[in-house]
Amino acid sequence: MSRPADRLRPFSLERVPSMAAGAALAVAGSTRVICTASVASEPPRWIRRGADGQPEHGWVTAEYAMMPGSTPERQRRGGGSRAIEIQRLIARSLRAAVDLDQMPGLAITCDCDVLVADGGTRTAAVTGACVALRRAVRAALEAGTLGRDPWLGNVAAVSVGMVGGVPTLDLDYPLDSSAEVDMNVVMNDRGRFIEVQGTGEKGDFSRSQLDAMLGLAEAGIRELHRVQAAALAEDDRGAA
Amino acid sequence: MSRPADRLRPFSLERVPSMAAGAALAVAGSTRVICTASVASEPPRWIRRGADGQPEHGWVTAEYAMMPGSTPERQRRGGGSRAIEIQRLIARSLRAAVDLDQMPGLAITCDCDVLVADGGTRTAAVTGACVALRRAVRAALEAGTLGRDPWLGNVAAVSVGMVGGVPTLDLDYPLDSSAEVDMNVVMNDRGRFIEVQGTGEKGDFSRSQLDAMLGLAEAGIRELHRVQAAALAEDDRGAA
Amino acid sequence: MSRPADRLRPFSLERVPSMAAGAALAVAGSTRVICTASVASEPPRWIRRGADGQPEHGWVTAEYAMMPGSTPERQRRGGGSRAIEIQRLIARSLRAAVDLDQMPGLAITCDCDVLVADGGTRTAAVTGACVALRRAVRAALEAGTLGRDPWLGNVAAVSVGMVGGVPTLDLDYPLDSSAEVDMNVVMNDRGRFIEVQGTGEKGDFSRSQLDAMLGLAEAGIRELHRVQAAALAEDDRGAA
Amino acid sequence: MSRPADRLRPFSLERVPSMAAGAALAVAGSTRVICTASVASEPPRWIRRGADGQPEHGWVTAEYAMMPGSTPERQRRGGGSRAIEIQRLIARSLRAAVDLDQMPGLAITCDCDVLVADGGTRTAAVTGACVALRRAVRAALEAGTLGRDPWLGNVAAVSVGMVGGVPTLDLDYPLDSSAEVDMNVVMNDRGRFIEVQGTGEKGDFSRSQLDAMLGLAEAGIRELHRVQAAALAEDDRGAA
Amino acid sequence: MSRPADRLRPFSLERVPSMAAGAALAVAGSTRVICTASVASEPPRWIRRGADGQPEHGWVTAEYAMMPGSTPERQRRGGGSRAIEIQRLIARSLRAAVDLDQMPGLAITCDCDVLVADGGTRTAAVTGACVALRRAVRAALEAGTLGRDPWLGNVAAVSVGMVGGVPTLDLDYPLDSSAEVDMNVVMNDRGRFIEVQGTGEKGDFSRSQLDAMLGLAEAGIRELHRVQAAALAEDDRGAA
Amino acid sequence: MSRPADRLRPFSLERVPSMAAGAALAVAGSTRVICTASVASEPPRWIRRGADGQPEHGWVTAEYAMMPGSTPERQRRGGGSRAIEIQRLIARSLRAAVDLDQMPGLAITCDCDVLVADGGTRTAAVTGACVALRRAVRAALEAGTLGRDPWLGNVAAVSVGMVGGVPTLDLDYPLDSSAEVDMNVVMNDRGRFIEVQGTGEKGDFSRSQLDAMLGLAEAGIRELHRVQAAALAEDDRGAA
Repeated sequence: MSRPADRLRPFSLERVPSMAAGAALAVAGSTRVICTASVASEPPRWIRRGADGQPEHGWVTAEYAMMPGSTPERQRRGGGSRAIEIQRLIARSLRAAVDLDQMPGLAITCDCDVLVADGGTRTAAVTGACVALRRAVRAALEAGTLGRDPWLGNVAAVSVGMVGGVPTLDLDYPLDSSAEVDMNVVMNDRGRFIEVQGTGEKGDFSRSQLDAMLGLAEAGIRELHRVQAAALAEDDRGAA
Repeated sequence: MSRPADRLRPFSLERVPSMAAGAALAVAGSTRVICTASVASEPPRWIRRGADGQPEHGWVTAEYAMMPGSTPERQRRGGGSRAIEIQRLIARSLRAAVDLDQMPGLAITCDCDVLVADGGTRTAAVTGACVALRRAVRAALEAGTLGRDPWLGNVAAVSVGMVGGVPTLDLDYPLDSSAEVDMNVVMNDRGRFIEVQGTGEKGDFSRSQLDAMLGLAEAGIRELHRVQAAALAEDDRGAA
Repeated sequence: MSRPADRLRPFSLERVPSMAAGAALAVAGSTRVICTASVASEPPRWIRRGADGQPEHGWVTAEYAMMPGSTPERQRRGGGSRAIEIQRLIARSLRAAVDLDQMPGLAITCDCDVLVADGGTRTAAVTGACVALRRAVRAALEAGTLGRDPWLGNVAAVSVGMVGGVPTLDLDYPLDSSAEVDMNVVMNDRGRFIEVQGTGEKGDFSRSQLDAMLGLAEAGIRELHRVQAAALAEDDRGAA
Repeated sequence: MSRPADRLRPFSLERVPSMAAGAALAVAGSTRVICTASVASEPPRWIRRGADGQPEHGWVTAEYAMMPGSTPERQRRGGGSRAIEIQRLIARSLRAAVDLDQMPGLAITCDCDVLVADGGTRTAAVTGACVALRRAVRAALEAGTLGRDPWLGNVAAVSVGMVGGVPTLDLDYPLDSSAEVDMNVVMNDRGRFIEVQGTGEKGDFSRSQLDAMLGLAEAGIRELHRVQAAALAEDDRGAA
Repeated sequence: MSRPADRLRPFSLERVPSMAAGAALAVAGSTRVICTASVASEPPRWIRRGADGQPEHGWVTAEYAMMPGSTPERQRRGGGSRAIEIQRLIARSLRAAVDLDQMPGLAITCDCDVLVADGGTRTAAVTGACVALRRAVRAALEAGTLGRDPWLGNVAAVSVGMVGGVPTLDLDYPLDSSAEVDMNVVMNDRGRFIEVQGTGEKGDFSRSQLDAMLGLAEAGIRELHRVQAAALAEDDRGAA
Repeated sequence: MSRPADRLRPFSLERVPSMAAGAALAVAGSTRVICTASVASEPPRWIRRGADGQPEHGWVTAEYAMMPGSTPERQRRGGGSRAIEIQRLIARSLRAAVDLDQMPGLAITCDCDVLVADGGTRTAAVTGACVALRRAVRAALEAGTLGRDPWLGNVAAVSVGMVGGVPTLDLDYPLDSSAEVDMNVVMNDRGRFIEVQGTGEKGDFSRSQLDAMLGLAEAGIRELHRVQAAALAEDDRGAA
């Protein structure tokens, strides 16, 4: 019996061993993305400096890669243009979670390595990397590297699409392959949009179809924000 | 006196000398993009072949580059990740203008070289390259390379954004630099969406702001479709 | 209380979700390496062909990469010369586990991605990838892609070294950093050597020290072969 | 009726919109080259510095590229070895137009992008880029970036060759394809040579043939210097 | 006591051990270039084929590299744009020594590796590689790979320049560094020019200076042709 | 009559013209490797600096390349993964010859270019580059760049293998091609090991076979150390 078109696949955020400052494993159905957030030992040279020579802001960037065994046909390392487009989306989304001016000199790279790919890897990456990033920021606050908390709120993402004329939430690989329209939506936990990317490579879409897809995405992302909040609340209990 | 927030910059499609099968110069305010459509002498190897060994479909791809003198600070050649993201958007948009199954073996590359960059280069590129592509397709029909017309309809694109809280159409460089939200919209001439890409790197946006921006884009693109249609109609008169 | 110099760290071979034909997670103390074995959909072009045009042998190759979060200081992707030297060692070792002439046309790539690096990543990679490879070969036998079993026997590897003048088995990162001599040893389950690589970058070593290190390695690898055999025996029980 | 062997194709230097400090469009018959001269915001690191830490000289370099639609068969971006040889010739020629010691710290890149290629693109590039460079130098003088004028005089270039045994001026593509010998000549406006490059890939040439070709080139370049002077004189009138 | 301005440095062509089909060591004063000519085991794919599927012509190409220890400051491997310009010159010159249509399917690469660089490396490379190429062609004739001799005649090259206002033959590194004009001349043994490349990066030159330099070059090259002929005649005696 | 399995091929260290600080030509049977040691004009940036800003140690690195004519089938330039593995072995071996802390700020690159390849090129490279390095170090001592001698002792290397079941010293190409096991051994002139690399890609090997091969290597390397000592002693006589 198949999943209703307005329901997410089972989604969880699990712990994963890592040497990085923050980490999380995002699991959406069969899709699994290892997300880590590494703090650079020195701020990048290009960051604007103040009169005192100190960096005036921080930076967050992202890298996305399919691991070789993530698909039945082996993925060659190196990514190519699809990976570049995806990691730019992830990075923009994550930068919306922090006030860069409140983390001067702190440069964090979030790496999203897809262990298993079954559709929705880029949105699982955003949702998981946000938690990894939050953990790295908290570690920097505890270590005193950061004076105050630059966190603006969690961001999460989901895909929606038109499949056989039906607005559908959270496309797995078979759904994605047959979808006429594919849309990725990123929102913060104040219910506002960070990024909307809809593409009709196999078909165009009307304004009302767009509206329907956005509605599904808003509901799905609300659920993802609850999973994120729970995972981060558990950290607090672990620390207590 | 400045342009109202719901008005396009002056937009025109001019002729440009080229050896390519189709060409057009897109001019949007100060922005100028040289668009050419080149037909490959042989279909790429990866195209699916039928039982008779013949290619079963065609292909359209795109490249986007800033020419070195397109900005006050010289642009280095080679593009990088921004160019890759942009040319993927352009290529997806152009593929929505044709039925690839109706142009078997025909592979067309649309090149968009930015001569002057003053904001909106990627959307001007889509609008201009669509006309260059149409001209290349017509040339192939006249030459008998194509048996029937694969054209589905013109596509055009425009940027919109939130600038100082005001939904604004067709951002030039100063507007784009101060915008909280930037959105690129591609539509076909049947009034349906091909691509919607909205990003709030300097701020999030509500559903109603999204709606306002989409409304502006729909109106602006309708005007661009008129300019495209006029340019192509003039070709017919020239040919007559 | 520290580990005796002649004892392995706790070593296990765990299952890991993957789309590859075979997979295993090698865990040696804190070190963790994700190993997958992917079967190419087509044999590489350079494989020698017989009079009937059919490939005459198979091939096994390997790639090794540190994941970005595998070390406290983030690892840049791309590997460089150290990774190349390591993956050549892994590939040579794995090819000793199979009779390439008995797997005509079958080309398998074993990927070793280091999730956590605490010394001994290359030897854990050999030991884990051997199990991933065995699983991929078994899958090919079950699927009928392979007519008979090309397996010659498991291979496993361990590091040994001279640390403060003491021959020491299975170096973790702190031991490796202070070792005068570092040696990697690969053996098959018939007790014979496949590869011996000893390096005295911080000190030279005598013939008797070499002998002592080889003795430790032989004992350690015997234990690793038992873990491999148990993991593969469990597969059979799972299948039964 | 064909052009006499001792006559140039129609040659003009037109204006072209650009953000660069100087620009010119060189038109030689059907050949069109967009030439821009961009001033670097900072002098390159390798420029020799005096005791006061200030750069002691300036630099002029060049890049040459065929735009994708410049030939009937699409040109791939990236250039390759032919482009490298050509841009080195252009750069050497342009450096002969200025006294680098009189422009300390000023680094100018001249970009020559071929819009339409019908033979003689490298010589048209020299002639056009010289005017773009002159305009950039004048702008730096007006802006006060330069204290005194480093200009030594205009340089211009033309091709000559042996075609069917006849010394021939200004080879277009069909002539160039059938020429036994191809020679590019660069001269300054004092009637002296800057560069002479003659190649007999399809045939050798005698000393007297060389003399005849040089004579044609001298006459042709004199005419190009008149066109350059006129274009630059017009700038003055525009400024007045 | 210094060498007169119209005299070559001592020049010889020595034997050098090699696995290539032909080889020669060109020695011009201190400059030493190892030249080898390797025959490809298969003709390149791009060579035009006749109706019978057989290649219709052959090919000669060249590579030029400075060995790391060839200069007091170590040369990095990889060459860059100077090497590309030089190897294109060498290849064009060598192709003038053979009738490519008489060596169907034979593809020869001439490698010129500079062991010691003291000026004139590219011209020594041409003169030496010509002999290596001749030896490879002779070996192919003896082996029966070639049916008839495609050799048109030897080519040799020398540099000339204006040094302190004096036309000067065969510039070593100190002369080259102080020359106002530098010219490379390639001629065949019938006294005709193959290539003339004169550059006045540190000064322009008059027609009469050009004539004087060409005269010196003609005399110098005549001497080089005698050395080439003697080296090749010695091969015959060796073979007899 | 063939060479006994326990005898080296004729080995010599000859002089070779070079601009590098030190140089030597290693000849082992037909194999010839040009070895040069170049001193960098500035210490690399990454070298650790003391409180006084001065570099605290020196560095030795190596590059290995097959020259294009070194094999019957032409070698493409660029090396690839085999060259990388080899040059890492050479560099590690050479660093064992010096006390890096006694040569602060001195960075030396040893280049090993194979002129003729007939097996054993990497071990000939180690043996020859050691002498080139020694010469460069002596030159730095004489020039006063080095205050005291960092030399710890010569290092030399040889290959051994199992060929048809027989432990065999110093494999030439035919022996290497048929060997079941191939081992490279590097030792210093105090009779201690620096590096041991044994590989059984075509067969495994027992502990007693390993012992036999090591015994042969020890004897062979002792002889190479005598050749090195003689070559360096001759330098002294030349200098006296």
